[in-house]
Amino acid sequence: MADSLNCDLKSLSPLQLFERVTEQGEKVRALKAGKAPKDEIDAAVRMLLSLKLSYKTTTGQDYQAGLPPRDLVLINNGTTKEEDQDFVDPWTVQTSNAKGVDYDKLIVRFGSSKIDTDLINRIERAIGQKPHRFLRRGIFFSHRDMDQILDAYENKKSFYLYTGRGPSSQAMHVGHLIPFIFTKWLQEVFDVPLVIQLTDDEKYLWKDLTTEKAYEYARENAKDIIACGFDVNKTFIFSDLDYLGTSTGFYKNIVKVQKHVTFNQVKGIFGFTDSDCIGKISFPAIQAAPSFSSSFPQIFNGKENIQCLIPCAIDQDPYFRMTRDVAPRIGQPKPALLHSVFFPALQGAQTKMSASDPNSSIFLTDTPKQIKTKINKHAFSGGRDTIEEHRKYGGNCDVDVSFMYLTFFLEDDDRLEQLKQAYTSGELLTGELKKVLIETLQPLIAAHQERRKQVTDEIVKQFMTPRKLAFEF
Amino acid sequence: MADSLNCDLKSLSPLQLFERVTEQGEKVRALKAGKAPKDEIDAAVRMLLSLKLSYKTTTGQDYQAGLPPRDLVLINNGTTKEEDQDFVDPWTVQTSNAKGVDYDKLIVRFGSSKIDTDLINRIERAIGQKPHRFLRRGIFFSHRDMDQILDAYENKKSFYLYTGRGPSSQAMHVGHLIPFIFTKWLQEVFDVPLVIQLTDDEKYLWKDLTTEKAYEYARENAKDIIACGFDVNKTFIFSDLDYLGTSTGFYKNIVKVQKHVTFNQVKGIFGFTDSDCIGKISFPAIQAAPSFSSSFPQIFNGKENIQCLIPCAIDQDPYFRMTRDVAPRIGQPKPALLHSVFFPALQGAQTKMSASDPNSSIFLTDTPKQIKTKINKHAFSGGRDTIEEHRKYGGNCDVDVSFMYLTFFLEDDDRLEQLKQAYTSGELLTGELKKVLIETLQPLIAAHQERRKQVTDEIVKQFMTPRKLAFEF
Repeated sequence: MADSLNCDLKSLSPLQLFERVTEQGEKVRALKAGKAPKDEIDAAVRMLLSLKLSYKTTTGQDYQAGLPPRDLVLINNGTTKEEDQDFVDPWTVQTSNAKGVDYDKLIVRFGSSKIDTDLINRIERAIGQKPHRFLRRGIFFSHRDMDQILDAYENKKSFYLYTGRGPSSQAMHVGHLIPFIFTKWLQEVFDVPLVIQLTDDEKYLWKDLTTEKAYEYARENAKDIIACGFDVNKTFIFSDLDYLGTSTGFYKNIVKVQKHVTFNQVKGIFGFTDSDCIGKISFPAIQAAPSFSSSFPQIFNGKENIQCLIPCAIDQDPYFRMTRDVAPRIGQPKPALLHSVFFPALQGAQTKMSASDPNSSIFLTDTPKQIKTKINKHAFSGGRDTIEEHRKYGGNCDVDVSFMYLTFFLEDDDRLEQLKQAYTSGELLTGELKKVLIETLQPLIAAHQERRKQVTDEIVKQFMTPRKLAFEF
Repeated sequence: MADSLNCDLKSLSPLQLFERVTEQGEKVRALKAGKAPKDEIDAAVRMLLSLKLSYKTTTGQDYQAGLPPRDLVLINNGTTKEEDQDFVDPWTVQTSNAKGVDYDKLIVRFGSSKIDTDLINRIERAIGQKPHRFLRRGIFFSHRDMDQILDAYENKKSFYLYTGRGPSSQAMHVGHLIPFIFTKWLQEVFDVPLVIQLTDDEKYLWKDLTTEKAYEYARENAKDIIACGFDVNKTFIFSDLDYLGTSTGFYKNIVKVQKHVTFNQVKGIFGFTDSDCIGKISFPAIQAAPSFSSSFPQIFNGKENIQCLIPCAIDQDPYFRMTRDVAPRIGQPKPALLHSVFFPALQGAQTKMSASDPNSSIFLTDTPKQIKTKINKHAFSGGRDTIEEHRKYGGNCDVDVSFMYLTFFLEDDDRLEQLKQAYTSGELLTGELKKVLIETLQPLIAAHQERRKQVTDEIVKQFMTPRKLAFEF
């Protein structure tokens, strides 16, 4: 009996264990209050102690009533100083390390898998093309179940792509393009349907915005996303505020997820408190639901079992860990994931680029002159203090923001390697490296602006109308 | 400064005060942790103590961290024994008093208003008809802002009716008809649109049901509701699972309510805990949203300011107190309410009739024989133990369930008064009173069954299709 209990307990997550301890504690109190027979109370207390022990073994923490285990990522970079920790959740990324977050440790903490050379080679064989530079350079560095997606693909079974964006303002910056650039490539090489969620409801809940303004931002952001070159026959873009009221499948999946996630769980995963509004508390289900094909009956002909692949920045993983936990319990396949690193702020990789700090960001609306000024003025340099020192000791590409941006945007591997060697050796100066970045970004952003001008309201409407896509299911 | 603070605090609800104390406590801790200047800490502590004092004055309780003031109704019936308390929330009604819940005390606790003779007379003048027996007999006994509805009606301004039902099974009992019988009368005398919410999502969240089953129950229950005689041109019946995905206005109102209600608030109002699923926690917003006309753009032509009147049993009031609290903050009019008493179980007025206890209920599907047997066997009698004693001392109508049911269903006031006098005097025996009830209920239920047979799936579909009704807005 005790053995089978322990066996059961081993399969429980820290949060499930926490809830078992809480329930058992309530049971003991009820038995005592009801003056139950002594042996019954003793048995219940023994069970409580055993549960508390399992909790401690699993989490390394003592059980504390009302304090579920937190699931935020606090990674200690090998030192004991508090300032040396990485903090990552869907709203904040912060590290004291100029090289950025320690992604290998993030993989261990999140329990995802590294995208290694074997997987990249397998993708190359499957698609018969050179993998995207984001894969070659470790910008998409982590995954969940990508091998299953490839198994399915090799067996001619279809899947679909899901990504998204929170439309908090009209202003999108170059970092926001990363998931869309990569998703577009995935869609082209695998030829699969794509759904893009604009969480205008989330932004209404978190920010000081009206629903109308949030929806307006969603439509404006859709223009930038469409300007990445998506195919209207293969892509459905939706605003939550709009689509929830026009889909027969979306709300049903939301309420199913909401039934299978407790407040304790979202408290542990997202750090919500009792003072948070109930909209925030239940929102994770709305980001979860598009992982299930039945949320899009118009695309998948009502089919429930189409596998989903989600390319996103790693800070969005908590939503999808929760989703993968719920999926089997509501009879749905777990979504697979591809995780990217964060796009660093101009000031350095300690934080990610943020639209709310204009000096940290290169916007998609910036002029060539603004791009040049921002990079020259704000881009953190890994170069030395004087030209003499730089020539003698060389620059440090690991912390140089201009070099980091070039790894995102410069397609030519050989050129990138040459730049790295020249900068590291001291042959290339900071100003010269910045010039290469400016000359790379200016035409990219100008071309984006040109394409965005072509995106009329009518085209946005087409993308955002629920409809069948160019695939049979 | 202190005066204006106190003035501010007086306008706060217990829950808002609770949150102010919590926030201030966090502020003090942060100041201390950050080693802030002593005078700053002292000022913050003084403010904290002042807030705690206001909390105690308002709630009569000491502030306890993490324990918001509970808003459930625990009415002490003048004694100090715990067993003598009434318990009322949207899921449970329990009293130790055979006369039922003390409704006068409920009015005081909920802060609603009694439906007094003046109001009943005013309704009679407004509609030019005798008020419904439910009003004449205090079955609808409490209200919020009914005078505003009458003001509007007298000024030719329109309003609409909203009521609902949680479809937890196919089996509806006679008690379930009370709000619908009254709502039908209101609709006829005022000639206004009516929306009826079937909370199949709530039942999915609370019960061991699939979404499909909950929706099936909603459709089956709709047949019983339609059989009450509603006019398809003036009435819209909707299932949440269905309508949420077909309305452009409903979800927007839900998310607006969700933004303005915290977990602390629903914890206080509904008694939710950290182990509850996030679906339950956010559900109150879904019952709130139909109080706003913009949830039904197809009926009200998108108009936001149409006043709503909600006839319901008093246990649903917590949802609408919350709604009325939120309404002005999202720019919507507060819904008005008419509250009914509970329909007593056959075994006595200590609990309400419950479909999950077949012996407590007369179902709408019961045969004349079943009705007769149940009443004879289970209906709690206020009569004496022997015929001799009964003749001598008389029966007690205040606790007699058969007499209570007759106050609900016997239209003739004079006849009811005669029965009361005859029973109280001992002239009428329990068996004879039960016979009157049986002969009243049998034809009512038979007629209901006859009308329900006429309600085809096609008719249900008409009622449940979002559409314009026979009113201009």
